[in-house]
Amino acid sequence: MKTLEIAEFLGGEIVGDGTVEILRVASLESATEGDLAFVEKTEFDLSTRASCLIIPIDLEHDFPVPVIKAKNPKLAFSKIAAILHTRKGRTEFRHDFSVVSETASIGEGVFIDAFCCVGHQSKIGDGSQLLSGAKVGNNVSLGENCVLHPNVYVEDGCTIGNNVVLHPGVVIGADGFGFVRDEDGTYVKFPQIGTVVIEDNVEIGANSCVDRGALGETRIGEGTKIDNLVQIAHNVQIGKRVVIAAQTGISGSTVIEDDCVIGGQVGMGDHARVLSGAIIGSQAGILPGKIVRPGVWWGTPVQPLDEYKRQNAHLKGISRLKEEVKLLRQTIDELSSITDKP
Amino acid sequence: MKTLEIAEFLGGEIVGDGTVEILRVASLESATEGDLAFVEKTEFDLSTRASCLIIPIDLEHDFPVPVIKAKNPKLAFSKIAAILHTRKGRTEFRHDFSVVSETASIGEGVFIDAFCCVGHQSKIGDGSQLLSGAKVGNNVSLGENCVLHPNVYVEDGCTIGNNVVLHPGVVIGADGFGFVRDEDGTYVKFPQIGTVVIEDNVEIGANSCVDRGALGETRIGEGTKIDNLVQIAHNVQIGKRVVIAAQTGISGSTVIEDDCVIGGQVGMGDHARVLSGAIIGSQAGILPGKIVRPGVWWGTPVQPLDEYKRQNAHLKGISRLKEEVKLLRQTIDELSSITDKP
Amino acid sequence: MKTLEIAEFLGGEIVGDGTVEILRVASLESATEGDLAFVEKTEFDLSTRASCLIIPIDLEHDFPVPVIKAKNPKLAFSKIAAILHTRKGRTEFRHDFSVVSETASIGEGVFIDAFCCVGHQSKIGDGSQLLSGAKVGNNVSLGENCVLHPNVYVEDGCTIGNNVVLHPGVVIGADGFGFVRDEDGTYVKFPQIGTVVIEDNVEIGANSCVDRGALGETRIGEGTKIDNLVQIAHNVQIGKRVVIAAQTGISGSTVIEDDCVIGGQVGMGDHARVLSGAIIGSQAGILPGKIVRPGVWWGTPVQPLDEYKRQNAHLKGISRLKEEVKLLRQTIDELSSITDKP
Repeated sequence: MKTLEIAEFLGGEIVGDGTVEILRVASLESATEGDLAFVEKTEFDLSTRASCLIIPIDLEHDFPVPVIKAKNPKLAFSKIAAILHTRKGRTEFRHDFSVVSETASIGEGVFIDAFCCVGHQSKIGDGSQLLSGAKVGNNVSLGENCVLHPNVYVEDGCTIGNNVVLHPGVVIGADGFGFVRDEDGTYVKFPQIGTVVIEDNVEIGANSCVDRGALGETRIGEGTKIDNLVQIAHNVQIGKRVVIAAQTGISGSTVIEDDCVIGGQVGMGDHARVLSGAIIGSQAGILPGKIVRPGVWWGTPVQPLDEYKRQNAHLKGISRLKEEVKLLRQTIDELSSITDKP
Repeated sequence: MKTLEIAEFLGGEIVGDGTVEILRVASLESATEGDLAFVEKTEFDLSTRASCLIIPIDLEHDFPVPVIKAKNPKLAFSKIAAILHTRKGRTEFRHDFSVVSETASIGEGVFIDAFCCVGHQSKIGDGSQLLSGAKVGNNVSLGENCVLHPNVYVEDGCTIGNNVVLHPGVVIGADGFGFVRDEDGTYVKFPQIGTVVIEDNVEIGANSCVDRGALGETRIGEGTKIDNLVQIAHNVQIGKRVVIAAQTGISGSTVIEDDCVIGGQVGMGDHARVLSGAIIGSQAGILPGKIVRPGVWWGTPVQPLDEYKRQNAHLKGISRLKEEVKLLRQTIDELSSITDKP
Repeated sequence: MKTLEIAEFLGGEIVGDGTVEILRVASLESATEGDLAFVEKTEFDLSTRASCLIIPIDLEHDFPVPVIKAKNPKLAFSKIAAILHTRKGRTEFRHDFSVVSETASIGEGVFIDAFCCVGHQSKIGDGSQLLSGAKVGNNVSLGENCVLHPNVYVEDGCTIGNNVVLHPGVVIGADGFGFVRDEDGTYVKFPQIGTVVIEDNVEIGANSCVDRGALGETRIGEGTKIDNLVQIAHNVQIGKRVVIAAQTGISGSTVIEDDCVIGGQVGMGDHARVLSGAIIGSQAGILPGKIVRPGVWWGTPVQPLDEYKRQNAHLKGISRLKEEVKLLRQTIDELSSITDKP
């Protein structure tokens, strides 16, 4: 792709030679010939050997290589990277060591690698890829252009939209964790016969789990991105464009509305509700039933970041406070002895 | 199943037509014709379209559909759900793409799907199911009516009882994490040659791990239920009817006695002991060697819930305390100036 | 192996019969005939039925069985255990149900079990083992004598050294978690096209994940040991001989220098740096960009253990402090009324 073509694709102004061939993207530091890099701030290392740079619109500098101006260079860089580094062209293929039910409906251009399964009455949309060992149960609906990485498992009856990426080891639709205690103390399983719905453009990280609803559904909204080793319990409802970092756990029936950002190792109790636009700091803990309003939240139990910081500062000040109280006691004792004298 | 049959199975009184056909269970809200739902409280939505309801014994109301009275409607509902929604009848089967050792002993009615392995001298009990990609090593003993979901792996030499359910991606019997530091700083592996014993009726959630004992055994007691992404280290001993929520980690040699309830994301140090009946709140941290008595515990390090709440309240009161001390200082300074005067 | 041979291998003095045959190692309590056990402290149970004991050099006692003296008995025991319990001799083998690219380079004595894959241009070093369901993508370099346990997945382009052990379900080289927000609120994926380098003698626990670098590499240094369910994000740099306990998560670009010890369920923000020799307590939280110096650290946000303990003690003392301030107020009020009188 030539530098001019890239500028046109990005809708950005180009300064310099528009005919330079770009093969890859790279970081500013490691870029070599044929690489496109990006500059975010006005301070940067001039010694890059990239063949082209994406720079902020307001950056005035005489570069030795062609530059493309963009409002958000990192975003522009990400967009062009998706073009330059398209996922390897896995075209229509079905490995001999795969098991596809005769009643399954397989779209056009579907790639099914070794040790994959597709169950009865399941539907795989056009252009989707099942990489080695990915397994799809019965009555599953998988949309178009999805990628199921190795050893992914999608249980019976789940529905997955278009352009969904499930990274290796993801488990969709396993039983939720619900038991009722019998009189003799044994736990009887509450039925876990609901389903999971994953909307378009969702990405879920390696070894994460999304449990099926107990009776209803667990839902993950369009464009939501989930990191590795995350636990989504039964009947959780996650809105659109939510970001959830690694190792976070969301308990049953909790609702996370659109456009929330959830840090790593966060724990949410059941039946909580995180309102649209809330940002939850890493390792925070949200109590069951809690409603979390928009804003930045931190700590266990969660509190507004400002309060959390103030409290932490207070906490650090306790020893000084103790000292102060001790001094007060001394002063008072002295005063008492004076006032006692007469 | 007819409403009268259900009432008889549950040992509950039926009020209304005993001949209505019930096909499924459902939630009160989503139920339609042929569905059985349950009512827990005395307030409920009368607009349900369920064909039958399980209701509390003391609920007096004139329902338009047959009702079955039960002491614990949710429990009764769970029990009948297990009948109405039996796991799909997977009968005796061995997929051509499976690898079963000639020295393995396979019981009657065992279902072995594609890409499964059963190692040498292993024993699979009657009616057990190995779903696609489930793998059993050598010298494993698996009881009757177990379900090993896709991509489960049970390492060599482990023993698993009857009616055990291992959800997708569960790893049983991987090496524990034990190393001894050599003089040059390198870590030498302490032998991890023990085993894992899982008793009857245990259920373990997706992608959870139970490590084998270093020299002895790791044991999970009868009827214990473990959620997703839980880590059970080497030589841990978990009693009967213990419940452990998602993402909790139990360090080496820790003992959890019968009937404990452990929240999600709890961390337990090694060689701790949680006494029978203790309840540990989510995200709690238990220090190594700590003995946790019965009662409700919270926080890191764990403390009784009451204390934790009191401490949290105190914490929130620090700024007021600071203010108070400042005022005291002012008063004293004034007092001092007065008493100094004469 | 005879007791004298063991003593010679360990370079330790033997007291007693050097011709006793030793078959296994065992714990002091469970040892029977043919077993070697070890004694760490000077107090121990004399009733062991082991055939040989490794004891501390300075332990003077008349044992009924041959003993071998060692500076560090546990270390000596671990070393001899590795000899007595060698991993089952899996020799050159390729299962019919495996898929190995014709362009892959497979070393001598490589064991490739059922349902394994090796992709194009990948290289498997001599003596390495791919256990059932382990999968290696394209252009992967795997060293000698590695063990990839069942269902491990190594993504395209990763480099793994010699003697590396990846436990079941480990995912190496999945995409990192990086997105740039577009003006309409959608998340655009930042390129995740870097790689993972794992150096010699690394061991990674079951279901742990190591993401590939975004543009550069994620690296795990020689001799580092990682427990189960750990998350290592993109571009993380982990030094040599680092130990990381279960369920810990390390965010993007964070650096952990040589010889650190990281507890379980620790969370590290991105771009943090843990300096060589630091010890981080379980469940600790390290803020993004934080530099953690050598020493023992605890809590969220991390602080030196001493400070953490002091703060915890202060916290427990708040109610007493409150009481004290209340008393001061009373005294002052009394004093005021006295000084007011004249």
